[in-house]
Amino acid sequence: MQIAVLLYDRLTALDAVGPYEMLARLPGAETVFVSRESGPVRNDQGDLALVADRTLADVPHPDIVLVPGGPGSREAMHDPEILAWLRTADATSTWTTSVCTGSLMLAAAGLLAGRRATSHWLALDELTPFGVEPTGERVVFDGKYVTAAGVSSGIDMALHLLGRIAGDATAQTIQLLTEYDPQPPYDAGSPEKAPAEIVAHWRAKAERVLARQD
Amino acid sequence: MQIAVLLYDRLTALDAVGPYEMLARLPGAETVFVSRESGPVRNDQGDLALVADRTLADVPHPDIVLVPGGPGSREAMHDPEILAWLRTADATSTWTTSVCTGSLMLAAAGLLAGRRATSHWLALDELTPFGVEPTGERVVFDGKYVTAAGVSSGIDMALHLLGRIAGDATAQTIQLLTEYDPQPPYDAGSPEKAPAEIVAHWRAKAERVLARQD
Repeated sequence: MQIAVLLYDRLTALDAVGPYEMLARLPGAETVFVSRESGPVRNDQGDLALVADRTLADVPHPDIVLVPGGPGSREAMHDPEILAWLRTADATSTWTTSVCTGSLMLAAAGLLAGRRATSHWLALDELTPFGVEPTGERVVFDGKYVTAAGVSSGIDMALHLLGRIAGDATAQTIQLLTEYDPQPPYDAGSPEKAPAEIVAHWRAKAERVLARQD
Repeated sequence: MQIAVLLYDRLTALDAVGPYEMLARLPGAETVFVSRESGPVRNDQGDLALVADRTLADVPHPDIVLVPGGPGSREAMHDPEILAWLRTADATSTWTTSVCTGSLMLAAAGLLAGRRATSHWLALDELTPFGVEPTGERVVFDGKYVTAAGVSSGIDMALHLLGRIAGDATAQTIQLLTEYDPQPPYDAGSPEKAPAEIVAHWRAKAERVLARQD
């Protein structure tokens, strides 16, 4: 079982590392971080680089494809080399997955047409032009395509996926060992739950926020 | 506000990246990843490297110190250079924090003596020899010392800290933008909640698990 995590400039680190930390503990799995070129890939904040050990060409047929989101997805979704790799990898993958605006990249590659998918709550509308039905659910399974909502939701997605792949006991074991017993001090993690004025503020500047241009 | 995230060989990536992703969004904050030497630092699974942009000597007086855990903490907690840096940084820090077995490193540096602290549920007992009172709570504040339980708990810790530093609205905004509205498919994230046979199995081999020697 080979798991490929795609890295690209200005990705959001937790989108990749959250589900990675869960999936990498799958017994027998090999996880590889891949990018156009091997070496450090810098995140959206600019202060953290994750290292891609392999190039896209090195890993043509992973069993699981994981595409994180981030401001850089707006460029990456127009990158012919990345789109070609997504299509090739998807042709033989068992699961093709994304977190946050990673679903826009899958959509741009033509992989989600006619399917239900999710994304960051501020980006959901952007799935529609690709023939994708957006849904605000946190984790969406549609066939072998699994999309997760914003940033931290990839952790939940990974646990769902582990359950499907290896059964409840393995997923529960990994949840226990990573002590994923969330107790956030606020209940503000979705637009339905956060204070209305905060949601309105960010909706008004959604476009700039997601491209991190301000 | 300078936030230093300590990296060392065989750390657990999510311990660092989870709280990082929250804290780095604090308006006006500068986050730096530091290690004994600058460059890539490989994680416990061996398949991911995070890049330290600065050495310990480059960052002597951060406002927030964040020490992630991981199997490598068992060596790092005996590393004189790391212990000296922890003591120096702590002498002027506003907050000194840890995730998972990172608290053992703070304890080994003598910073938690006489205080309450937490750690990974399998490592709690190891705090006692350092004069630390272990508690199974997920996030523990004792003065300026903030410790979090295993791996994923650093995300919760960071939100608590953001609330203290910048107020509820800022913390809620960051929770919303990272869509931290956890919905794990299982309720197995703590030894009190996971199936008893899974907990018993891992308790029996705790020592090897935490050092990742099997």
